[in-house]
Amino acid sequence: MLYVVGLGPGGQEQMTFEAQEAIKSCETIVGYVTYMRLVQELTEGKEIVCTGMKQEIDRCQKAIDIAMTGKNVAVISSGDAGVYGMAGLILELISSQEKELEVRVIPGVTASLGGAAILGAPLMNDFCHISLSDLMTPWPVIEKRLHAASEADFVICLYNPRSKGRPHHLRKALDIMSQYKDKQTVVGIAKDVGRSKEQVIVTTIEELDETLVNMTTIVIIGNKDTYVSNGRMITPRGYTV
Amino acid sequence: MLYVVGLGPGGQEQMTFEAQEAIKSCETIVGYVTYMRLVQELTEGKEIVCTGMKQEIDRCQKAIDIAMTGKNVAVISSGDAGVYGMAGLILELISSQEKELEVRVIPGVTASLGGAAILGAPLMNDFCHISLSDLMTPWPVIEKRLHAASEADFVICLYNPRSKGRPHHLRKALDIMSQYKDKQTVVGIAKDVGRSKEQVIVTTIEELDETLVNMTTIVIIGNKDTYVSNGRMITPRGYTV
Repeated sequence: MLYVVGLGPGGQEQMTFEAQEAIKSCETIVGYVTYMRLVQELTEGKEIVCTGMKQEIDRCQKAIDIAMTGKNVAVISSGDAGVYGMAGLILELISSQEKELEVRVIPGVTASLGGAAILGAPLMNDFCHISLSDLMTPWPVIEKRLHAASEADFVICLYNPRSKGRPHHLRKALDIMSQYKDKQTVVGIAKDVGRSKEQVIVTTIEELDETLVNMTTIVIIGNKDTYVSNGRMITPRGYTV
Repeated sequence: MLYVVGLGPGGQEQMTFEAQEAIKSCETIVGYVTYMRLVQELTEGKEIVCTGMKQEIDRCQKAIDIAMTGKNVAVISSGDAGVYGMAGLILELISSQEKELEVRVIPGVTASLGGAAILGAPLMNDFCHISLSDLMTPWPVIEKRLHAASEADFVICLYNPRSKGRPHHLRKALDIMSQYKDKQTVVGIAKDVGRSKEQVIVTTIEELDETLVNMTTIVIIGNKDTYVSNGRMITPRGYTV
């Protein structure tokens, strides 16, 4: 059995019971170094397979190969393994290699939900997720989605908003959004959700300081009704209050 | 202190540790009858305030009023309380009534993530959430979002896809999507996720039998690259496998 387990955004408190049970039930745990540290307590005595950044295919292939020998294996991912995570890659590899292997995806709290909770309640109306990484999606496709989502007034959650290799994507995305959304539209920034250095910033499209944003940040841009009250970002659901 | 707690989609296994801790730490638990049953074990001996369907404002107001007396109160919600849930309403009421009350939102696994996990990995590329309930969002706004999301080839998660009062919204939504998405586009239906009668159906826009869909169902429409392998719905992330 191969489990693909989402750990939630931060420490063990944001993990689900079934995620913990899945890890406990496995002989082998496969994951990126950073995430392995988050579950250290649960993995003592187990076979650990750590790989570095950008070695996703290698990592998933190893997990499949070990599971094919009959072992119970858990591949761990931050957030939800099914959101830009390892679940898809595992299933793609199994499909293309025509392997017969039982896989169970254990969902977790993805970064947007974790970030939204500490920002207030920005996701109370229709919202979308867009990754600003063009490593695997062509930039024109990302731009098209930014245009469409902004024009239809979705709340927008940006994954992979800014990195050293892509320092200008966030600014480009905000410029596109500004064509449809007011520059005073509320923007919430949640950094390192669930970790000790967790940080929240509530700002606007116009005033956002993009140098505060890195790869462990989630950026949530409100819709036209999103407002700030007592430091909290709130998107109304539509109730008359 | 007022906690707004997302329980995850199903039983206690999909609840996070901090959600359980929050409930345990409270004297009073407020929620919709059905959800109260899911956490019965955790709430023994506590003050329970149950309200019925469509009494959201009343329920949140009661929770606020009790918390204002100094008690620790948890408002519980299925899925994630911040996604079309109670978190926003709580914060809106506190804001409009200018109350001073500490609120903590505890995120949970929302229905789309829970559904995606049992369907396979449909949310591996950009995706959005649209509620088909027009009780609080005008139908033309919903239609506009359906057009925009389909044209930009988002994976689309439909919340509140169909109810007795809105039997035709799902068909209308699929008709709009068909203007941009191929009729053979993969559609995943996840019913009663995490509960004993959990059910998964993988079909297409064209072949979807809408009578299988009700209010405890999440419907996920793929993008142009989404495929089915061994009964699982997979949206490629873009890796070369």
